[in-house]
Amino acid sequence: MRRTISVLVENEAGVLARVANLFSGRGYNIDSLNVAETLDPSISCMTIVTHGNDPIIEQITKQLHKLINVIRVTDLTESEHVARELVLIKVATDASTRAEVLRLVDIFRGKVVDVTPRSFTIEVTGGESKIEGILNLLKPLGIKEIVRTGKVAISRGN
Amino acid sequence: MRRTISVLVENEAGVLARVANLFSGRGYNIDSLNVAETLDPSISCMTIVTHGNDPIIEQITKQLHKLINVIRVTDLTESEHVARELVLIKVATDASTRAEVLRLVDIFRGKVVDVTPRSFTIEVTGGESKIEGILNLLKPLGIKEIVRTGKVAISRGN
Repeated sequence: MRRTISVLVENEAGVLARVANLFSGRGYNIDSLNVAETLDPSISCMTIVTHGNDPIIEQITKQLHKLINVIRVTDLTESEHVARELVLIKVATDASTRAEVLRLVDIFRGKVVDVTPRSFTIEVTGGESKIEGILNLLKPLGIKEIVRTGKVAISRGN
Repeated sequence: MRRTISVLVENEAGVLARVANLFSGRGYNIDSLNVAETLDPSISCMTIVTHGNDPIIEQITKQLHKLINVIRVTDLTESEHVARELVLIKVATDASTRAEVLRLVDIFRGKVVDVTPRSFTIEVTGGESKIEGILNLLKPLGIKEIVRTGKVAISRGN
């Protein structure tokens, strides 16, 4: 099962390495991860998406708690949360496909962020299924490159 | 100087740990990092933002090249690129501030993604200065929590 884990850490050299080592030490892959500062620049927040055997993920979560510089670990999977992702997509375009690409950008409320005579770069944000949706529709037109942030997640409510 | 480095890697357990270790081994902090799959699920793309002494960053970049499972390293800092970030912001609201928060969301073309009687959760995307802009305006109203993806970047043109 896919799990989304939010980890609050001190913003110091070596913290990301320790967290990543915990997963790789067990041969566990991280599907996506992002880490950036919070409002307090001495604290960063990571969102980690991983999948696999529940007891092992639970073990990893417990060990995350024990790591130096880790302040809080929240497994958001089973609680209400909002998750979003940003993707930049560079699509090949020519006179015959430009209108179709723009139509899709419009439907998915994306934005064109760069234009060349032969390509558009598009920004789209949304949940996983929306992102997969636009990627599937653009694929036949010729995607040259994509970069995704991976999911960020925040708990619902107060 | 701040540097934005894009790293294409094989999507395997341990790769993120090796990359993170390379930075922490030199006492170098990563300001933000994100990693997620590309269109080919066996390959992931990382965007790393770091800062510091240019020769050392250059050394790290060279060593990244040599790592097992690293396919391509591109320092985007000095070439034309598009960079965007997504942030989820939970803001305290009450009857007297709700309209003001919605006005800011509108001006920054954000979206309200969750509402409770006492808070809004907002999604905003943009470059660094836009994100800093809305955060500075929302701070006096009472930000409860933020989660940022960190920058994703893609080269301009073909």
